Amino acid sequence: MGKSSSRGRTPSLEAVAGNGLVNRRALLGRGIALAGALGVSGATGAAAEPLEDAPWSHAFGEVTPPLQTPSRFEKNVVRALSNPNGEFRTAHARTPHQLLNGTITPNPLHFSINHGGIPDIDPAQHKLVIHGMVKQPLEFTLETLSRYPLATRPHFVECAGNSAGMFSSEPIQAPAGLLHGLVSNAEWTGVPLSVLLDEATIDPNAKWLVAEGGDAQFLDRSIPVKKAYDDAIVAIYQNGERLMPGNGYPMRLLVAGYQGNMNVKFLRRLKAVDQPAYTYFESKNYSQILPGGKTWRFHFLMEVKSFITSPSFGQHLKEPGFYAISGVAYSGAGRIAKVMVSADGGKSWGEAALQGAVHDKAFTRFVMPWRWDGQPAVLQSRAWDEAGNVQPLRAEFVAARGQTKAPVKSPLAFPNQHYNSLTSWGVDRKGEVAHVYA
Amino acid sequence: MGKSSSRGRTPSLEAVAGNGLVNRRALLGRGIALAGALGVSGATGAAAEPLEDAPWSHAFGEVTPPLQTPSRFEKNVVRALSNPNGEFRTAHARTPHQLLNGTITPNPLHFSINHGGIPDIDPAQHKLVIHGMVKQPLEFTLETLSRYPLATRPHFVECAGNSAGMFSSEPIQAPAGLLHGLVSNAEWTGVPLSVLLDEATIDPNAKWLVAEGGDAQFLDRSIPVKKAYDDAIVAIYQNGERLMPGNGYPMRLLVAGYQGNMNVKFLRRLKAVDQPAYTYFESKNYSQILPGGKTWRFHFLMEVKSFITSPSFGQHLKEPGFYAISGVAYSGAGRIAKVMVSADGGKSWGEAALQGAVHDKAFTRFVMPWRWDGQPAVLQSRAWDEAGNVQPLRAEFVAARGQTKAPVKSPLAFPNQHYNSLTSWGVDRKGEVAHVYA
Repeated sequence: MGKSSSRGRTPSLEAVAGNGLVNRRALLGRGIALAGALGVSGATGAAAEPLEDAPWSHAFGEVTPPLQTPSRFEKNVVRALSNPNGEFRTAHARTPHQLLNGTITPNPLHFSINHGGIPDIDPAQHKLVIHGMVKQPLEFTLETLSRYPLATRPHFVECAGNSAGMFSSEPIQAPAGLLHGLVSNAEWTGVPLSVLLDEATIDPNAKWLVAEGGDAQFLDRSIPVKKAYDDAIVAIYQNGERLMPGNGYPMRLLVAGYQGNMNVKFLRRLKAVDQPAYTYFESKNYSQILPGGKTWRFHFLMEVKSFITSPSFGQHLKEPGFYAISGVAYSGAGRIAKVMVSADGGKSWGEAALQGAVHDKAFTRFVMPWRWDGQPAVLQSRAWDEAGNVQPLRAEFVAARGQTKAPVKSPLAFPNQHYNSLTSWGVDRKGEVAHVYA
Repeated sequence: MGKSSSRGRTPSLEAVAGNGLVNRRALLGRGIALAGALGVSGATGAAAEPLEDAPWSHAFGEVTPPLQTPSRFEKNVVRALSNPNGEFRTAHARTPHQLLNGTITPNPLHFSINHGGIPDIDPAQHKLVIHGMVKQPLEFTLETLSRYPLATRPHFVECAGNSAGMFSSEPIQAPAGLLHGLVSNAEWTGVPLSVLLDEATIDPNAKWLVAEGGDAQFLDRSIPVKKAYDDAIVAIYQNGERLMPGNGYPMRLLVAGYQGNMNVKFLRRLKAVDQPAYTYFESKNYSQILPGGKTWRFHFLMEVKSFITSPSFGQHLKEPGFYAISGVAYSGAGRIAKVMVSADGGKSWGEAALQGAVHDKAFTRFVMPWRWDGQPAVLQSRAWDEAGNVQPLRAEFVAARGQTKAPVKSPLAFPNQHYNSLTSWGVDRKGEVAHVYA
């Protein structure tokens, strides 16, 4: 924003698409009735005191803690758990996107999936080895990795099964965090994997790395050496602090833009080999099943995608007037180029503003001003990335990738993988927001 | 990093300055003995299994919680408290920079200073009023603010009293977080203040806003209207979630690059006036005292600054060899342009690498590869911003701004304000790191 850019020059609130979408550059300002008006005081400021003191202003407040935690009024801002009692099966925890804003997912709210519980790893006992087709096998500790020049970058990580409920033949009524909560975005800091592979002198014929974690499943995935040299890191910090236990403490692989579980957590092994390993997690569990029952051999890339977080399912617009339509967009293929928003179920589209810096393979927050007239509306977003990929329309996506025959009941089910089509939120005359297909 | 940029082409480890500083573009890689070597397996990968299983790999792990918390092995990563029992006085909590990396300060670790305890504010009862020299006084709630298109930006916030112990005539022996922990960096999301002032139609003769918080001190500061229109926001999210209680929940002013307490927390009032209010917190408590005893009328800007977080006081280099010198740089006047690092107490300097995107008025992480030869070394960093400002050398700074006559004993003392000169870490032959002046 330029200096004094808007003072005295009210930007136009021109419509740019149907059903109330307004120019994204319009700063809502003079004349927009969002705030409550107080009695006019005049230019002298001599009016009566407009504020009454609240009780917390008249008492010494709470003690400052070593670690801050959210207000007790934000108790609902938690991850949704699929296995809250730690039964002997996979545990998913989903990020509550409908309650968040900006681009960073705070570490307490970063999604996690653990197939064998969360290991309680003593970092002093944990080792990472690089071996196989290398000239010099090497062993690293958290302490030795910390001595390298570290790279710092914001990246999203998304489970291939995120948004799986969107394969349902009927829209599942659930908030954005239950439908899309298996993606989060953090600033990751770690050692470029290329440096470690150079140090081990990897064999030119080694085309794959089998990455293995130290959790109870020894979860393993095959990673192309090309990707390792492109932008992979061994991450040892997450948003500035050591990794969360559920996100791979003390070290994880970060292959930005690739399926979540290729970013192997609790990383203990990188074995250089000449063929992929066809592990359970790449051959079975995270495969994309196509109409006709075939699957792709590999489907590493998390494709361009976006969803609106506000207004979204479960929210209530209490009156007609101005609202901001806001959400996140991201692509495993690079930076977000643009996001279009519709308020009429895709009949017309306006370009949303991208807030802040747009980073490679990272969340971009988009915002679109909207004047709701009290009539039914269907809100959608659609993202493009810098490589020219576009989020497919639902009809296109279903034709190519299928949907279930019977409606899926639970947003926690995984009928298929790699949903990256649109999400539509229907607003009714009462201002209630539901999940619809449009 | 370009694709396959380093594979097979070992970058030069040429010295760029005295005492072991290495070209910042050198990727430590082939031939650098940081990792432990394992027995040579040869290119067939047929060697013996190099890993033994740890106990946590053979047991089902811990339950996934609704909110993630750090590993029990990271219990020392907490803020340092000046008032842990909540006595009737100011409470400071300092960010432990020596234990962090990257640029984001996680919300639990963001510094806080509260003069009257932390108010337990019910957001449904909290109001912000804009009044005084405006045509239409207005009242906002968290709910109405949330309906505006929000801006999202990373910014540091720094207390004017940060690094006050550096005014001591002798170096205080304390870790980076105790010396410099009253600065943190977060992604803030909120409503541009220009939009709200336009909505209220501020009088052209109003040159100042008196911002007042709803804490027990009704902390208030005078803010230039020009800054309000430049880049101020009313922040309602911090790193994606609602503000921490100690950082201003449910809303705070964010005047990026200005003294920390101008970023008024628990914001309840913006009164447009034609003169500054000369409040306690701008006329007395946060004034810069100059040699001779005079003070500047105002000193809003937090000037260009940097400090090394690793190696730093209290850390131990266990052996000669390669290390990364890493720290943070920031300026209230804009983006960081470059950071120079010295390993010989300022005799010679090499340019550090800036990691990731460089943002306006935000932390930038710098990194410099260094080969420690086991001899004494003095590590320093010095930052430049895009406006051409440079961090002053200590002798220059002390001449202009003074230091104490007697040594200051506690890093929690506040002999003066606005220290932005260098920090020097001395490494002895044993690898112990102390605070020195150089």
